[in-house]
Amino acid sequence: MIEKYIIRTDLALEQKERFESDHVEVQGVILEEEYDEEREIKITTVKIETENGAKVMGKPVGTYITMEAPNMAVPDEDYHREIADELKKYLEKFMKENVKEKKEDYSVLVVGLGNRKVTPDALGPYVVDHLNITRHIVREYGKYAMGEEKVHLVSAIVPGVMAQTGMETVEIVKGIVEETKPDVIFAIDALAARSSRRLNCTIQIADTGIHPGSGVGNHRNAITRETVGVPVIAIGVPTVVDAATIVNDTMENLIAALESSETLRGVGVVLQGYNAAEKYELVKELISPHLNGLFVTPKDIDETVKRISFTISEALNAFLCPQGHAHN
Amino acid sequence: MIEKYIIRTDLALEQKERFESDHVEVQGVILEEEYDEEREIKITTVKIETENGAKVMGKPVGTYITMEAPNMAVPDEDYHREIADELKKYLEKFMKENVKEKKEDYSVLVVGLGNRKVTPDALGPYVVDHLNITRHIVREYGKYAMGEEKVHLVSAIVPGVMAQTGMETVEIVKGIVEETKPDVIFAIDALAARSSRRLNCTIQIADTGIHPGSGVGNHRNAITRETVGVPVIAIGVPTVVDAATIVNDTMENLIAALESSETLRGVGVVLQGYNAAEKYELVKELISPHLNGLFVTPKDIDETVKRISFTISEALNAFLCPQGHAHN
Amino acid sequence: MIEKYIIRTDLALEQKERFESDHVEVQGVILEEEYDEEREIKITTVKIETENGAKVMGKPVGTYITMEAPNMAVPDEDYHREIADELKKYLEKFMKENVKEKKEDYSVLVVGLGNRKVTPDALGPYVVDHLNITRHIVREYGKYAMGEEKVHLVSAIVPGVMAQTGMETVEIVKGIVEETKPDVIFAIDALAARSSRRLNCTIQIADTGIHPGSGVGNHRNAITRETVGVPVIAIGVPTVVDAATIVNDTMENLIAALESSETLRGVGVVLQGYNAAEKYELVKELISPHLNGLFVTPKDIDETVKRISFTISEALNAFLCPQGHAHN
Amino acid sequence: MIEKYIIRTDLALEQKERFESDHVEVQGVILEEEYDEEREIKITTVKIETENGAKVMGKPVGTYITMEAPNMAVPDEDYHREIADELKKYLEKFMKENVKEKKEDYSVLVVGLGNRKVTPDALGPYVVDHLNITRHIVREYGKYAMGEEKVHLVSAIVPGVMAQTGMETVEIVKGIVEETKPDVIFAIDALAARSSRRLNCTIQIADTGIHPGSGVGNHRNAITRETVGVPVIAIGVPTVVDAATIVNDTMENLIAALESSETLRGVGVVLQGYNAAEKYELVKELISPHLNGLFVTPKDIDETVKRISFTISEALNAFLCPQGHAHN
Repeated sequence: MIEKYIIRTDLALEQKERFESDHVEVQGVILEEEYDEEREIKITTVKIETENGAKVMGKPVGTYITMEAPNMAVPDEDYHREIADELKKYLEKFMKENVKEKKEDYSVLVVGLGNRKVTPDALGPYVVDHLNITRHIVREYGKYAMGEEKVHLVSAIVPGVMAQTGMETVEIVKGIVEETKPDVIFAIDALAARSSRRLNCTIQIADTGIHPGSGVGNHRNAITRETVGVPVIAIGVPTVVDAATIVNDTMENLIAALESSETLRGVGVVLQGYNAAEKYELVKELISPHLNGLFVTPKDIDETVKRISFTISEALNAFLCPQGHAHN
Repeated sequence: MIEKYIIRTDLALEQKERFESDHVEVQGVILEEEYDEEREIKITTVKIETENGAKVMGKPVGTYITMEAPNMAVPDEDYHREIADELKKYLEKFMKENVKEKKEDYSVLVVGLGNRKVTPDALGPYVVDHLNITRHIVREYGKYAMGEEKVHLVSAIVPGVMAQTGMETVEIVKGIVEETKPDVIFAIDALAARSSRRLNCTIQIADTGIHPGSGVGNHRNAITRETVGVPVIAIGVPTVVDAATIVNDTMENLIAALESSETLRGVGVVLQGYNAAEKYELVKELISPHLNGLFVTPKDIDETVKRISFTISEALNAFLCPQGHAHN
Repeated sequence: MIEKYIIRTDLALEQKERFESDHVEVQGVILEEEYDEEREIKITTVKIETENGAKVMGKPVGTYITMEAPNMAVPDEDYHREIADELKKYLEKFMKENVKEKKEDYSVLVVGLGNRKVTPDALGPYVVDHLNITRHIVREYGKYAMGEEKVHLVSAIVPGVMAQTGMETVEIVKGIVEETKPDVIFAIDALAARSSRRLNCTIQIADTGIHPGSGVGNHRNAITRETVGVPVIAIGVPTVVDAATIVNDTMENLIAALESSETLRGVGVVLQGYNAAEKYELVKELISPHLNGLFVTPKDIDETVKRISFTISEALNAFLCPQGHAHN
Repeated sequence: MIEKYIIRTDLALEQKERFESDHVEVQGVILEEEYDEEREIKITTVKIETENGAKVMGKPVGTYITMEAPNMAVPDEDYHREIADELKKYLEKFMKENVKEKKEDYSVLVVGLGNRKVTPDALGPYVVDHLNITRHIVREYGKYAMGEEKVHLVSAIVPGVMAQTGMETVEIVKGIVEETKPDVIFAIDALAARSSRRLNCTIQIADTGIHPGSGVGNHRNAITRETVGVPVIAIGVPTVVDAATIVNDTMENLIAALESSETLRGVGVVLQGYNAAEKYELVKELISPHLNGLFVTPKDIDETVKRISFTISEALNAFLCPQGHAHN
């Protein structure tokens, strides 16, 4: 059965959905949904509570909140302000739950992951571009220099990707954490989704940190409380779908159509003789090897990534430094 | 039968291949192939000679030369110089065949089509970035100011896309042609391919100008000798595949596998009862509507488009202004 | 006397000031000032009414309005909205006075002059980046597609500079005007000021079009009603000071100090024997030839140009297409 | 006397020149010059050998080599290759002298200092863009994966400036050094010169690391062997002159002219009564406070910085990874 779930998604919500669609109950995983009708925002919480749940889901134990708002792709400033307000609430909630020590002002390091030069991967760098950076000002002049009662110390880094730096991102982040001792990290990253309709209108916040590649295993390169020593809250937006995923989905539709078809009842009979693993093999064989390294992304990706990254930076700014101004 | 050929490709070569694969002879279309073994460059010439050929092919009458070199995606400077040399030969050939009046020095307008801010669409603007622009210098100081015996007057424009300008590109180009009277236009554009293995390693040169969208019909917005008054030589590189194309291809593979399968002989029997149009309908129904507006492109597209656009500008520079230097 | 006034400024206001400071009355030039105390915006209107006035001022006959607001350089969104509101009023006024034919909806071409790749020269391209482009939508679907009672047809072009295109900008603009027949052009350009304190906090609107270089004379390359056939309203912001200007100013201060100095009375005696032209020659000799081609600009120019270009595009959007949305 | 030397220059060569021009012998500082006539490259070596020399020069003890080549600003590829070859020699020399432990393959961290978004400050980031990054490949596949006998482990970081990160650059670099243990750092930075004729045609290599601001004192923020634990070789190119410097220089010329003038002998008499400090005060008073934060840079700075950063990255690539290819 597992083979079917290998297809990559970075959204815990989508992983859970796959099991739901097969009426498979996953032990140790809880799902809650709520819908804000007025603002048309759907909030889904996936809690992976046990190691068994983590293994089945292919994602580490933790809480994953997903905000879905189809209009997020629309350039409506007022609506984006509402999304930023909502996102701010969840950032506060995650901060409160994950940073144990209670302080008036926290030191927060924002990490903008990804490659600034590849548009769908530029979400993290773009968010950092619009942040209010305060740490150096507060350290030099005190927090009242910001004209605020409450100002967190905000620092930020855009580490680049391994092909640009020759280093694992965790090496860079760990080094910076050791020097600057932040209380918490917010790590922003572009994600891959299964479903193209979630592209650029979904935000996932998770308290599990960043797990490059497969999710579980491969701990060495993860950016997590375990590897860097402070809580890591991940904020992600799906901007691409793997090309193989889209093909695979359509093939599954075709096989399902064949299985249920009135006119194709004969085929159905034969295909029902295949088990899931055999069908997966059949599909894999037919998917062109040229699809490796290809991704699917919308034509207006440049505009959409800019808009959503601005919304995320507004939420972070409202939360961390209410009246400050971005450095550009 | 025609339905099958609706799937979009901007490469005449790929359109022809589809008919070949069905052993369909298209009247009025000639195909020639040669292979430069040493340099591993395959040259294919498709000549559409009649209006009937144009109608079947969905592309206007004219000559289309395709250079395929799998290593074009590899960052090998020497190899790129060889490709630029080869490309230069075809640019000269097209120029000689299409510009009737014989002069010592021609006035050439290079048009960099596409959207600079969307990487796979930025080929045209990037090529213009690296051109040696000479028209203003030659007009001011004479051609000997360039230190050359032979210097064409090179001008260039990056008109932007309609969402940025509110104008059809042909309106902009036509206006500039009327004011500056070039002898010929070279128009550079990113293309869509059918096959992902052709992405970023194929260059098509055609004497048919630029036909946005479907190719035939829709003459109003085309950039051709008819609409702008001077010959338009198009240089294109496929940088994306429509998401629907990739899905469609794999589905065809699946159907073919089902039809020929030993174990699935029963399905084959049923599907053979479907004609091509019915199969196309079945596939179309199963392709998600969310694929509209999505394209497939490689992860390293930024780097690849930069490299190949540099190769094209080197070929243009070598041809038009041998010893000059790019403005940046 | 005239030599002194050769030092370059693109602001009519600054040219007028030089004469004022010498108590020279210029015939045919009127100056009016008003000050909006609440919003701290100073509005100066310079009207050059006669050819003689134009000759003395080194600027063509027409109306020049300058908005000065020292806080324009400060990143205060509310304040920038107020500036955009004020600017909108003057755009409406100039449009009404310069476009004779009365229509409900005008066709407006915005030209973003300058070089996108050189920050202080990128004002025009940046303004165009944030415009609501409507012409193609209104032409395709009618103006109600914009959800507005009143929508002007907005088109825009970023022509590039001559080193990039090989063409005079007026050739490009004239060609586009002939093809698309706008009622009026708004041309946005970065300017050079005399005084560094006006950098990035001053907007000049003029109904005289664009005069590259010296201002009067050199009509061939100007973008004006005479050369392109429709009224051209110029919007400019000073972003640089010529290096030679800054040096010259300080030298004049030094000479003035020497002339008036108690302790240096002896020097005064000698320098008073010099006339203005001789002093100018002395200064010119001492200014390093290495200053040619150098300009002076603030360290935060990138941020400042982005902010003020956004303010200008907001004013244009509010005026031309009240509820639309920018393409990016 | 010292006041005169406060005017900022990052070039040890220029600091030394000021003393030379006053026939002042600085103890503990040695200057050597050689001129490569064929290639028109002037090489100057300044060695600051004692703490006293460092105090007078306002720069730390160490070796500073300056390559001056007026044609560096010209876009001649062959000539840039020669400069890269020459630069490579000095990089090898500094590496050999500063890294004590002898290995076959060194681990080298390249730090691209400065702000990518402000052209004259983007030298460091641009150099990193064109580097062959090898560390991750060698660590994963061994050095033979690079097809080379000798491959250093090259990693790189573009840390950003404090306004973007909220952190001192040394905090970021120190953290990364502790995690990744390089043998040596090459730090690339844009510099300020005194003389505009040195802009963009001068490269300084120094074994003293990076000293933000004044040079001596302020050790806390320096990036040196003392602060980060490994040798730091600095490579810099002057891209700006402080506006105040240019004004000051011209004023000194004026005063000198007045002092020596035949016709102004009377002035000379008075000014000779001023000592250096008094003259400096006079000049300072006359320089506009609006010059603070302004810099002088050439109109073609974008193009020039790109070209020279490419030359530096070619020298680093030739030295560190002879046959590799840049990641973009």
